[in-house]
Amino acid sequence: MMADPARLSFNTITVRDQWSLEQCIEGCARHGIRGISPWRDKLAQYGVERAARHIRDAGLHVSGLCRGGMFTQPNAIEDNKRAIDEAAALGADCLVMVVGGLVPGSKDLARARGMVADGMAAILPHARAAGVGLALEPLNPMTCADRSVLSTTAQALDLADALGDGVGVALDVYHIWWDPEIARSIARAGERILGFHVCDWLVPTRDTVFDRGMMGDGAVDIPGLRALVEAAGYGGMIEVEIMSQLDWWRRDPDEVLRVMIERFRDAV
Amino acid sequence: MMADPARLSFNTITVRDQWSLEQCIEGCARHGIRGISPWRDKLAQYGVERAARHIRDAGLHVSGLCRGGMFTQPNAIEDNKRAIDEAAALGADCLVMVVGGLVPGSKDLARARGMVADGMAAILPHARAAGVGLALEPLNPMTCADRSVLSTTAQALDLADALGDGVGVALDVYHIWWDPEIARSIARAGERILGFHVCDWLVPTRDTVFDRGMMGDGAVDIPGLRALVEAAGYGGMIEVEIMSQLDWWRRDPDEVLRVMIERFRDAV
Repeated sequence: MMADPARLSFNTITVRDQWSLEQCIEGCARHGIRGISPWRDKLAQYGVERAARHIRDAGLHVSGLCRGGMFTQPNAIEDNKRAIDEAAALGADCLVMVVGGLVPGSKDLARARGMVADGMAAILPHARAAGVGLALEPLNPMTCADRSVLSTTAQALDLADALGDGVGVALDVYHIWWDPEIARSIARAGERILGFHVCDWLVPTRDTVFDRGMMGDGAVDIPGLRALVEAAGYGGMIEVEIMSQLDWWRRDPDEVLRVMIERFRDAV
Repeated sequence: MMADPARLSFNTITVRDQWSLEQCIEGCARHGIRGISPWRDKLAQYGVERAARHIRDAGLHVSGLCRGGMFTQPNAIEDNKRAIDEAAALGADCLVMVVGGLVPGSKDLARARGMVADGMAAILPHARAAGVGLALEPLNPMTCADRSVLSTTAQALDLADALGDGVGVALDVYHIWWDPEIARSIARAGERILGFHVCDWLVPTRDTVFDRGMMGDGAVDIPGLRALVEAAGYGGMIEVEIMSQLDWWRRDPDEVLRVMIERFRDAV
């Protein structure tokens, strides 16, 4: 069954090189999009209070703020607390957590994973007090060295279970589609699913970060994954997040939004 | 503890663009390398019988033949039976199985995985009769769409268990290092480990297939993984397999072998 268009949320990185956050909010209004997920760099450029007011006035729901995490980098705790405050100011459904890769210069995965667990524990009271859910996002294993030592949904759920209330997962089809355990893990996730992101895996993939495809242009059975997520109880927004240096970041952003809406209907 | 240099096996793809198989065999002899793992394209160019004789005369042990698999492509069964015969002719420790990605044009992972299991079952009697072990190689999930729907060691072991005698796994640090379950999976693998391959994960990785690094140049704790494999009982050869279009395939091959031997001593 077709996904309800009212559940489409526009992740602003999809037009990273073309639009400011202000333009993204106006674009959503113009195209009848009901949800938005901003990135913090553009949020800072616009100003959190101005952005929050504009988003509210446009009637947009904030499905998530991108992003917290990076616990293996310096000053992570303070920066994550600021991210939590920003997510609260926007009324975001969650703060998406990209946990960070290895400590630069280190090959110690266990150490990096320990820093992630410790960092999450350190910011969790602040998140609970602010009423902001922390959504651990497992990332495709090809990002393990430099972006995320959290690689599978099962691993994210183990960490969420250990941390307790206020922690869940954000599941992006790009990162999870290959996982032989994914059906079991999504069923296990249940109410801990705080976000669901879509795009597609292109063949060939020419860049390990910035070559994501529009839904329908790649290898992922997106409706199959959506069905699993919904069977697990998730009924929230579905975020479209496409990092595409070679294609979508070079196009007219109104065209990007038009195609995105079309594909959300036909390929999600 | 340093790996015994006598366990080093040279996977010939490491100098794919520079040397024929005949030159690789001579290179191994010249550099005091005791093991070799040829690829089938170069084996065919040289001729299986001539290659087998040359390898024997050079006193080289064949740690594996690359490769069988690709069960989601046409004519896989007949081609795999030929690969088994070639592995037997070379006295190889195993035939390395890269199982194949999605069926071209399909997004059905379950179907592809079913074809892999069926294909393995179809060739297994031939492999048993020839005395050739089939080594399932889990590949980094970034290759799931086009090369391998077998993504984790646990998944490979589940399939090996279902198939029974004559099937094991080939573990390449490049493909398995990120896996949060890897210590458990390697312990479980035990005697089913038929091959152990090393190279390194570069940061950044500029190509999802042909940008592997020399041991010591990347993010992988290779000695840590070797210790796990040896604790599980593996004492066979350690294959160096580096696909590197941007670096090692452009270098003088004698230099590649010299550096490889040095790094085998210092970084494996």
